[in-house]
Amino acid sequence: MILLMSIFAMPLAMAQQQSSPDGNVVLTFSLKADGTPSYKVTYKNKAVINESTLGFKIREVLSSYLLKSDETPVYSEKSLPDDSKIKKIEPLTQNFKVVDTKKSTFKETWKPVWGEESEILNHYNELLVQLQQEKTHRKMNIRFRVYNEGVGFRYEFPSQKELTYFVIEEELSQFAMTGDHTAWWIPGDYDTQEYDYTESKLSEIRGLMKQAMSDNVSQFVFSPTGVQTSLMMKTKDGLYINLHEAALVNYSLMNLNLDDKTFVFQSWLTPDAQGAKGYLQAPCHSPWRTIMVSDDARKILASRLILNLNEPCAIADTSWIKPVKYVGVWWEMITGKNSWSYTNDLPAVDLNTVDYTKTKPNGTHGATNEEVRKYIDFAAKHGFDQVLVEGWNIGWEDWFGHKKDYVFDFITPYPDFDLKALNDYAHSKGVKLMMHHETSGSTRNYERHMKAAYELMNQYGYNAVKSGYVGDILPVGEHHYSQSTINHYLYAIKEAAKHKIMVNAHEAVRPTGICRTYPNMIGNESARGTEYEAFGGNKVFHTTILPFTRLQGGPMDYTPGIFETEIKYVNPNNNSQIRSTLARQLALYVTMYSPLQMAADLPENYEKHMDAFQFIKDVPVDWQKSVYLEAEPGRYITIARKDKHSNDWYVGCTAHEGGHTSELLLNFLDKGKKYEATIYADAKDANWKTNPKAYTITKQKVNAKTKLKLTAAQGGGYAIQIRKLEN
Amino acid sequence: MILLMSIFAMPLAMAQQQSSPDGNVVLTFSLKADGTPSYKVTYKNKAVINESTLGFKIREVLSSYLLKSDETPVYSEKSLPDDSKIKKIEPLTQNFKVVDTKKSTFKETWKPVWGEESEILNHYNELLVQLQQEKTHRKMNIRFRVYNEGVGFRYEFPSQKELTYFVIEEELSQFAMTGDHTAWWIPGDYDTQEYDYTESKLSEIRGLMKQAMSDNVSQFVFSPTGVQTSLMMKTKDGLYINLHEAALVNYSLMNLNLDDKTFVFQSWLTPDAQGAKGYLQAPCHSPWRTIMVSDDARKILASRLILNLNEPCAIADTSWIKPVKYVGVWWEMITGKNSWSYTNDLPAVDLNTVDYTKTKPNGTHGATNEEVRKYIDFAAKHGFDQVLVEGWNIGWEDWFGHKKDYVFDFITPYPDFDLKALNDYAHSKGVKLMMHHETSGSTRNYERHMKAAYELMNQYGYNAVKSGYVGDILPVGEHHYSQSTINHYLYAIKEAAKHKIMVNAHEAVRPTGICRTYPNMIGNESARGTEYEAFGGNKVFHTTILPFTRLQGGPMDYTPGIFETEIKYVNPNNNSQIRSTLARQLALYVTMYSPLQMAADLPENYEKHMDAFQFIKDVPVDWQKSVYLEAEPGRYITIARKDKHSNDWYVGCTAHEGGHTSELLLNFLDKGKKYEATIYADAKDANWKTNPKAYTITKQKVNAKTKLKLTAAQGGGYAIQIRKLEN
Repeated sequence: MILLMSIFAMPLAMAQQQSSPDGNVVLTFSLKADGTPSYKVTYKNKAVINESTLGFKIREVLSSYLLKSDETPVYSEKSLPDDSKIKKIEPLTQNFKVVDTKKSTFKETWKPVWGEESEILNHYNELLVQLQQEKTHRKMNIRFRVYNEGVGFRYEFPSQKELTYFVIEEELSQFAMTGDHTAWWIPGDYDTQEYDYTESKLSEIRGLMKQAMSDNVSQFVFSPTGVQTSLMMKTKDGLYINLHEAALVNYSLMNLNLDDKTFVFQSWLTPDAQGAKGYLQAPCHSPWRTIMVSDDARKILASRLILNLNEPCAIADTSWIKPVKYVGVWWEMITGKNSWSYTNDLPAVDLNTVDYTKTKPNGTHGATNEEVRKYIDFAAKHGFDQVLVEGWNIGWEDWFGHKKDYVFDFITPYPDFDLKALNDYAHSKGVKLMMHHETSGSTRNYERHMKAAYELMNQYGYNAVKSGYVGDILPVGEHHYSQSTINHYLYAIKEAAKHKIMVNAHEAVRPTGICRTYPNMIGNESARGTEYEAFGGNKVFHTTILPFTRLQGGPMDYTPGIFETEIKYVNPNNNSQIRSTLARQLALYVTMYSPLQMAADLPENYEKHMDAFQFIKDVPVDWQKSVYLEAEPGRYITIARKDKHSNDWYVGCTAHEGGHTSELLLNFLDKGKKYEATIYADAKDANWKTNPKAYTITKQKVNAKTKLKLTAAQGGGYAIQIRKLEN
Repeated sequence: MILLMSIFAMPLAMAQQQSSPDGNVVLTFSLKADGTPSYKVTYKNKAVINESTLGFKIREVLSSYLLKSDETPVYSEKSLPDDSKIKKIEPLTQNFKVVDTKKSTFKETWKPVWGEESEILNHYNELLVQLQQEKTHRKMNIRFRVYNEGVGFRYEFPSQKELTYFVIEEELSQFAMTGDHTAWWIPGDYDTQEYDYTESKLSEIRGLMKQAMSDNVSQFVFSPTGVQTSLMMKTKDGLYINLHEAALVNYSLMNLNLDDKTFVFQSWLTPDAQGAKGYLQAPCHSPWRTIMVSDDARKILASRLILNLNEPCAIADTSWIKPVKYVGVWWEMITGKNSWSYTNDLPAVDLNTVDYTKTKPNGTHGATNEEVRKYIDFAAKHGFDQVLVEGWNIGWEDWFGHKKDYVFDFITPYPDFDLKALNDYAHSKGVKLMMHHETSGSTRNYERHMKAAYELMNQYGYNAVKSGYVGDILPVGEHHYSQSTINHYLYAIKEAAKHKIMVNAHEAVRPTGICRTYPNMIGNESARGTEYEAFGGNKVFHTTILPFTRLQGGPMDYTPGIFETEIKYVNPNNNSQIRSTLARQLALYVTMYSPLQMAADLPENYEKHMDAFQFIKDVPVDWQKSVYLEAEPGRYITIARKDKHSNDWYVGCTAHEGGHTSELLLNFLDKGKKYEATIYADAKDANWKTNPKAYTITKQKVNAKTKLKLTAAQGGGYAIQIRKLEN
């Protein structure tokens, strides 16, 4: 009887709570009867996360795969450890006791180098639970931070002799949903995030997985119910829930695997070449696992929880980090009009021996002196900071898909690209060139050439690089999101910082707020960008979801601004059509926050619509304040932002297939002050499919009391510039 | 009938022969009836290699593991390609036709930067067979070079649209033995060569494998009949046969797997993390596969076949490459007397945060200012060029076995090692310090720090580095002998050459004559060296085999010269005993050719035997000429070498457990000239086990007609200095 008492009493005795500053979010930690750590989360007394267990399956580090001499020799053709031979150690799942708990409060305002607002409040209540496993005496702490918009927690392993080096077989963090929520999801994958979103009930994921799995040159889908974070959900009673992670450093990326009978998600880390999901050395900690929740979708967009869970800026002098608006020699290759490659003569390139001067130019090379000068002239004329040039360097003839180690050297231009002359020309016009480093996923090769490549940039005056990781990662067997590759991306960013270079990495891991710590990471792709509009199209509602998901971790180089919505006018062989109206293309400069924004279309296409192009010229890329006016995932997003360096505001709205009508009250404007609004809207008969380029531009005087009724067409949107008038 | 004719006639019609310049070695190439390429080798009309087939099993490069949309989705927890899903392509084994054959002769004398002789003759007859596969039209050439001492062949893939990028599943080169030869072998392994040799019949390998597999911190034995090259064999009728490879570049290492019913060896390459055995891009070629043969074992030692099959020197200015005789802070750690580490306070080191000044020194750290000065003084006093210091840099507390990525930074000294002061002190005495870079197999980490590490060496005046690869290779799943790791070793050598740095890489891949092309690679370990004498001992006959095997590919930093043969006098807790007499330790400076030779014992041990030590002081490390006086694998080796820079000769003899009596005719000396010989020999009652330190030193006048009768004790040997007298 006494025994029973103690077993049943323990979970209650061990339960610990912490609330958000506003009291709406309540986190409860408890130990189950068997000593398994668990937690749950409520919001305004509604369950958000049901009881969910925490822990790890781990194994020892093997220093050799051969059994020692007292056992039978192992002969194996596969260079993988034989699972049956691995010495098992007790998992970090149960038999824990609580050694101590600590509660604290933190409140601070910090100023990002760039961002959606110039000051960010970091305010949370913390609960630190110090656990020890009964027999093994291993220590594991769990730190919870409770914000008004949700909860972050991470595992921490103090320095201890009982647990120093260990291998993660799997992290066992559960996120138990309370029902069959609606989710906006993409397939869980070890190598790509470039999927279109599917909106469905959790119970429908399995049935929809196959059609959700579009092709990519590098991809690895691990489960029929596996999905990626940031995962956006909505409950039947109107709660918006978002699961993601923050501060992914020296750890592998987390996907989520759903048990679609119980609606419990479990963490599913990215393996390395031997299936191990991480090598840890105490003292250490996991990234933060984040649960955002609100009954107002706008608050999910407004939350800075993920940035706040990252470490403060690690770069002492950030004066060289500047937001960038740019054009580039890019869309002409994406659409298939021109090529990155210089010649069609070479079935394979050996950079050690290739001599391009002996090959016949293919006539389609985009990055020629002439073409680049055209973009420089255009950029200078219209006030853009930089011109991206892709395909400037040798090696593009066989650039991916071959597991080729030495695929680029990052320093040698093609014969028709005069590195010095073009930089001189650009600088003479007040424009910079933007460097491009495609790595083809060959990370060792990039690291070998990185210093010389960055030095070349310094020599010629480049201060920003777009890097790319198309194709499978080398070393073989590693994935885009393995611990070791995650480590590579951060290495590239830190080395770039030493050279005062800003990085915009494509096909790298999705961001998790790292830009707070390393603000020279001014962009990422890590999702399906505008380029897919030329590869068949993105779903119409795509841009109404990305700010809820991909953008939670940091800005995206989405490359909006495509005015010529029918690609066949660029390349007759490409029948793709942009699934957006022209007006919505303008709105994206506001709704898709990024300190790095491209005007992606060809200069000649802009020249046909210079009135609309004026918005792209005017829109800032850094903000003092952001107001989230309307938001519903998969339906519409309307955001107002105040320029960091003036009193002007900009508004953008993006809408799904069904269109959207807004009634905006401009009460974010200074009271009693006068403004002039320039409204770039879909024309009445506009829609993305049959009449995408029908737009209107109107001006009107507005103030803080003005109400605007505006309609976004099907797949449409609107953009507004609100200029403060001299009073 | 006509059909049958043509089928049977083809092999004969296609047979092509090429002979060695002296006519003794005959190579025959032929196509079998099914179009399979094959070859055989005879020596003085005796079969050496029976008909052996050639070819490859290959597959296409997969750019993604996910099946495309017309197939069922794949969900897999393992990041390995599912074999059943890999698109198979026809192997490069049969259905070949001979398109053309070309014969040529080459004869050239070249001068190595350093070596066993100052001029090397490269004389061979070549047969190039150009093959094309019937249906696939893929081209594959086989190039044979026939030398007086054997045959080298390699596969060549010309540039062609039918075969550009491909993956080797296995190379299928056979080496069909003619009988159950005696072999001196070590277990085939993907990660280590540090095994004691076993002498047995080929048929006995399987039964002896388990006991041959001693432990190593990184090892992977792949087959119960797998063995390593260079493999030395002897036939019943007295032919000596050696199988190895030359010019291993951008390819994985070859082991040999024996079919012990037919005595056919087949090539067995080292896999990568996914089991692939190499990624090739045409035009390209394999390394050379070498078959040395003679009826005189001395000719195997005298052969330069492997060096000759390598490319000429690729370094324009080699003036900075100099042979080195050195001492070092090393044996005291190997014996367990002192430690590489500085403190015992740290269960794990994080180089980002560690502060050694806050730890308690363990009192056993070897690389202290005081200890290093002692070695500098000793080196200066006795004319050594350099002093190796291991354990000078931070990180040794947890240096291997943890799959730790950032294990060393290669630039930060421990608090008790004053980098500048010690270099200044050494230089003031005409001595250099030798750098030490232990990588612990973490190749990416080494490459990240390599430039800074080499620059530090340049800054302080180091010109040689001993590097190490103890423990499993990172990236995980790669082996010490995978293609990508092979590529790393050469990268390190080439980058070192840019900084005029000589490299002596331990635990790296066994050499294959690469030092001809990159003579700054002045040493390697890649076998069981003297250190194992302190780890329990090497077999007594070890040094009578290594010159036939390991040394065929290049010099070894064997670190001989241990005078205190009972380790307990260095470290009372170590009961190991050197399995060699003291006199044999001297002989190894002659028999184990290397341009880099260490006097490995402690200064205090040398000081007890300064008379014997004189030989180590006198013996050169670079040679004009070498004469192989006596040789029998596993029994004895006696070599005479002429100093490159004088007219003096040095003789060394090493003997197995049975001892050896030599009757030497000194007819290699200049006729009619007078010399004085100083003979360092085992005393009459010496033997390695009970009386190893009993030696005699005698002097006598000798000339080209002198006959010397000398006896090496059990596990003994002798060394002779023969000084030319002024006439």
